[in-house]
Amino acid sequence: MLTQSSYGKERIRLVQVLRRPDRDDVRDLTVAVRFDGDYDASYTDGDNTDVLPTDTMRNTVYALAAQEAVRDIESFGLRLARHFLERNRCLTRVTIDLAEHHWDRIAHGGREHGHAFLRHGAETRTAAVSADRDASTVSAGAADLMILKAAESAFAGFRRDEYTTLAETRDRLLVTSLTATWQYRDHAIAFDPTWHHVRQTMLDAFAGHRSESVQHPLHAMGQAVLDAVDGVASISLVMPNRHHLPFDLSRFGLENRNEIFVATEEPHGLIAATLTR
Amino acid sequence: MLTQSSYGKERIRLVQVLRRPDRDDVRDLTVAVRFDGDYDASYTDGDNTDVLPTDTMRNTVYALAAQEAVRDIESFGLRLARHFLERNRCLTRVTIDLAEHHWDRIAHGGREHGHAFLRHGAETRTAAVSADRDASTVSAGAADLMILKAAESAFAGFRRDEYTTLAETRDRLLVTSLTATWQYRDHAIAFDPTWHHVRQTMLDAFAGHRSESVQHPLHAMGQAVLDAVDGVASISLVMPNRHHLPFDLSRFGLENRNEIFVATEEPHGLIAATLTR
Amino acid sequence: MLTQSSYGKERIRLVQVLRRPDRDDVRDLTVAVRFDGDYDASYTDGDNTDVLPTDTMRNTVYALAAQEAVRDIESFGLRLARHFLERNRCLTRVTIDLAEHHWDRIAHGGREHGHAFLRHGAETRTAAVSADRDASTVSAGAADLMILKAAESAFAGFRRDEYTTLAETRDRLLVTSLTATWQYRDHAIAFDPTWHHVRQTMLDAFAGHRSESVQHPLHAMGQAVLDAVDGVASISLVMPNRHHLPFDLSRFGLENRNEIFVATEEPHGLIAATLTR
Amino acid sequence: MLTQSSYGKERIRLVQVLRRPDRDDVRDLTVAVRFDGDYDASYTDGDNTDVLPTDTMRNTVYALAAQEAVRDIESFGLRLARHFLERNRCLTRVTIDLAEHHWDRIAHGGREHGHAFLRHGAETRTAAVSADRDASTVSAGAADLMILKAAESAFAGFRRDEYTTLAETRDRLLVTSLTATWQYRDHAIAFDPTWHHVRQTMLDAFAGHRSESVQHPLHAMGQAVLDAVDGVASISLVMPNRHHLPFDLSRFGLENRNEIFVATEEPHGLIAATLTR
Repeated sequence: MLTQSSYGKERIRLVQVLRRPDRDDVRDLTVAVRFDGDYDASYTDGDNTDVLPTDTMRNTVYALAAQEAVRDIESFGLRLARHFLERNRCLTRVTIDLAEHHWDRIAHGGREHGHAFLRHGAETRTAAVSADRDASTVSAGAADLMILKAAESAFAGFRRDEYTTLAETRDRLLVTSLTATWQYRDHAIAFDPTWHHVRQTMLDAFAGHRSESVQHPLHAMGQAVLDAVDGVASISLVMPNRHHLPFDLSRFGLENRNEIFVATEEPHGLIAATLTR
Repeated sequence: MLTQSSYGKERIRLVQVLRRPDRDDVRDLTVAVRFDGDYDASYTDGDNTDVLPTDTMRNTVYALAAQEAVRDIESFGLRLARHFLERNRCLTRVTIDLAEHHWDRIAHGGREHGHAFLRHGAETRTAAVSADRDASTVSAGAADLMILKAAESAFAGFRRDEYTTLAETRDRLLVTSLTATWQYRDHAIAFDPTWHHVRQTMLDAFAGHRSESVQHPLHAMGQAVLDAVDGVASISLVMPNRHHLPFDLSRFGLENRNEIFVATEEPHGLIAATLTR
Repeated sequence: MLTQSSYGKERIRLVQVLRRPDRDDVRDLTVAVRFDGDYDASYTDGDNTDVLPTDTMRNTVYALAAQEAVRDIESFGLRLARHFLERNRCLTRVTIDLAEHHWDRIAHGGREHGHAFLRHGAETRTAAVSADRDASTVSAGAADLMILKAAESAFAGFRRDEYTTLAETRDRLLVTSLTATWQYRDHAIAFDPTWHHVRQTMLDAFAGHRSESVQHPLHAMGQAVLDAVDGVASISLVMPNRHHLPFDLSRFGLENRNEIFVATEEPHGLIAATLTR
Repeated sequence: MLTQSSYGKERIRLVQVLRRPDRDDVRDLTVAVRFDGDYDASYTDGDNTDVLPTDTMRNTVYALAAQEAVRDIESFGLRLARHFLERNRCLTRVTIDLAEHHWDRIAHGGREHGHAFLRHGAETRTAAVSADRDASTVSAGAADLMILKAAESAFAGFRRDEYTTLAETRDRLLVTSLTATWQYRDHAIAFDPTWHHVRQTMLDAFAGHRSESVQHPLHAMGQAVLDAVDGVASISLVMPNRHHLPFDLSRFGLENRNEIFVATEEPHGLIAATLTR
């Protein structure tokens, strides 16, 4: 009757400073831990014998970072997953979700300061590790990259029915907040440079593409990643269409030469796809 | 290579006033529409021939509400699903997500006013309809019910390892923001009274339960719904543990008689389960 | 050169359970403390000699609640203000901002449960105490009451210029999120019943008013409070106009009988005024 | 009895694309307009004769941008203020608040792309123009710069009372979200380069400072701006102390060499000051 269950801890906020004589590094992470396993007795009978407290999951994140500095979030996720599987016999699958918030160095006296930082925007680097006793999978991602095309974006030739009022356009403003997640073939991968390679490949494909819709550049971006980055087995992209509508200036005897737009929050389109090698 | 895709519209905000001589009713909805189907050409070739614009999805929500007033969100979702399937041959599965924000009447001169309303809190009523050409499923839900137990809530007897520091307690403050979703067996159900029955059953079970954890009342609440409401085939509950920590007053020579708590936002536990008949 | 300065603590989250044999009460508060005074040396020289840590401000909120239970937020604010003024000779003015989040009892077996609660919506009750060594002022308020009028709301006869496109209407949907703050003449007032009296008077005036704009009911609501509640010296109301726009159904050959609206978030109007006795 | 009133429009979202043959520029603004003046009759009598609709304020923002491209937000604010004062005889003071969200060019094939952009973080550039028929003031600002010092930040030697438990430290992690606003002496200023000069001066002072508190670098940053930038008459800085607390590893027999921190959201300190020439 209890057909699925899981429990864990969300939003564990860890900041680690890696101290060197003249330059510190900062790792700013948000971590979530989820346990799936044979914990039915805690639900049905209130028997907590095998339940590791979620407070312990949180402590473990800090303790493991203290014992070996976080290098990349993918490796740290794998280390956490292994730790929990080894110590919890009822645990059948553990999932670790990680997000990293990047900090840039502040320019000071013509060069980068060693200890002062400026947070780099809303964009986050993400990773997810899912592991059972036989295997583990690693995925990486980039969340909330706001990107915009001011030219070479169209939407025309679409289906119309009795409720269609949208005008066709060969030249619209395309704005989206890209979230992408990709699966790695194996763990013998250089996670850091690969992440940057995938991110830059997506941005490059977006910039250089002549887009007939949101679907069209989304596919081109995914395709470009599979072509360029060997270690990626599949990639999922989600691109909300943050509509920027031309403002109707004709009511004031003015012309809108595709320059004046109303940025809107809702409603928004939502386009998603997965490409697999 | 394109192994999954979908597109649609999110956050369509519809308010419908049902006008009667002396009393209006207000329906305040947020609707999302998602299409899954044979739309690969739009991704791979920028061919939009079969792509119904998401702007049309939005228009359709308003147009269908105008032609027949929204009674309950479940029926409205079914109507929208049917409409889209009939008109779009490439569409294989349509999903309609709906949330309703309730408005109470303002008391005025000793009775409820006919035209003036006060929004009823953060809690929302939800529904989801998923349909293909053969069948459709309807689920309903309640989101963001903040509930609290000031007594009869414990957490003890749990597993300890080297990173466990949590103290056992027979008497803690339990605060959660319940989100529940349940599947109906069929559509021949009185959606409105059933929704209220499920919601009250969950609250009742929560209030009357002696809880050994978060898992324990979660299961009791799901069990109570399956016992009491025949039309429900299965129910999923998600209960984040919004930790309220006793404030350490001993440092000031004061005693905390389980009365003074620090409410925290993060990190939080997250407990989830599905019960099926 | 340092012409103004202040420091303090924001978002101190205190939950107090008032325990009685068969019925608990819950006080759920967010408190902020601000110090203005002779703290220039901490800014200019890094001299912290007279700086009470903001961490101590936080501790004090919990410690004072522990020593005497919070009854109403106005009295608790006065108590905190007095405490800080007595102990900090550099402090010239202290400001305490308080917000209370109300919890309703859950109905259980035909009556209200003694220990189980359901959070009452997004609306909060607020208070602000500002005190120096000679005097203190107390204000109270209600924040984020979402209210709606489905009839008896117009906007017509307004000024037009070359950029005015808005149509006149005798019958529009008026939706606002009321935030009101009122000053009390003195502290010899029953804070709890007075707060409920002011809130109900505003809702009553809103419901019963024939509105020509947002300004118009705002004034009527303020006027009603000054007329009905003797202890109030002045009242400020802020009413954003959360525009609900009629959806244009004529494009589909349908009529909008003032029933189908698009709820929007931005842009929004913002109307504010203060009425003084 | 109506002792203060204002009305206006908030969150007007304007995106302007400045098109050139091979490189577009993007201006992404959020604008608010507020009118103070002789509008009492609209409040007391529902007489809208002199009330310019807030919808017209919104239209005007788009129309004026269309007639002369937005260069910097300060000039655009001045232009809007002048426009409204000229056309509205009841208007005594108009306030224009502007926020700009910056977009960076996407790197493509080794150089910056002409039409594709990536949103630059959460930081915004702000401006405020306040004008009556005799004079106008212009202020500029930077909001939500998250900055961090990993070294050279202390908090010690502070006042203690019976509720003080905070430990002294010579070496803590200092994290704040800086919001600064500065007044210009006059309008004959190069707004763009001055804004960048002020921002860089603040970051530079923050990075190079040995901090004894949050107050201490705040003052140093304001002082540095007044010293370096002649056109600034005064500057206000607000710096919340986003506490990053050392995690207690000693419970696991581990040492925290000032490397492992818990990032917290609430409660937080709030430090503010204004420096005037």
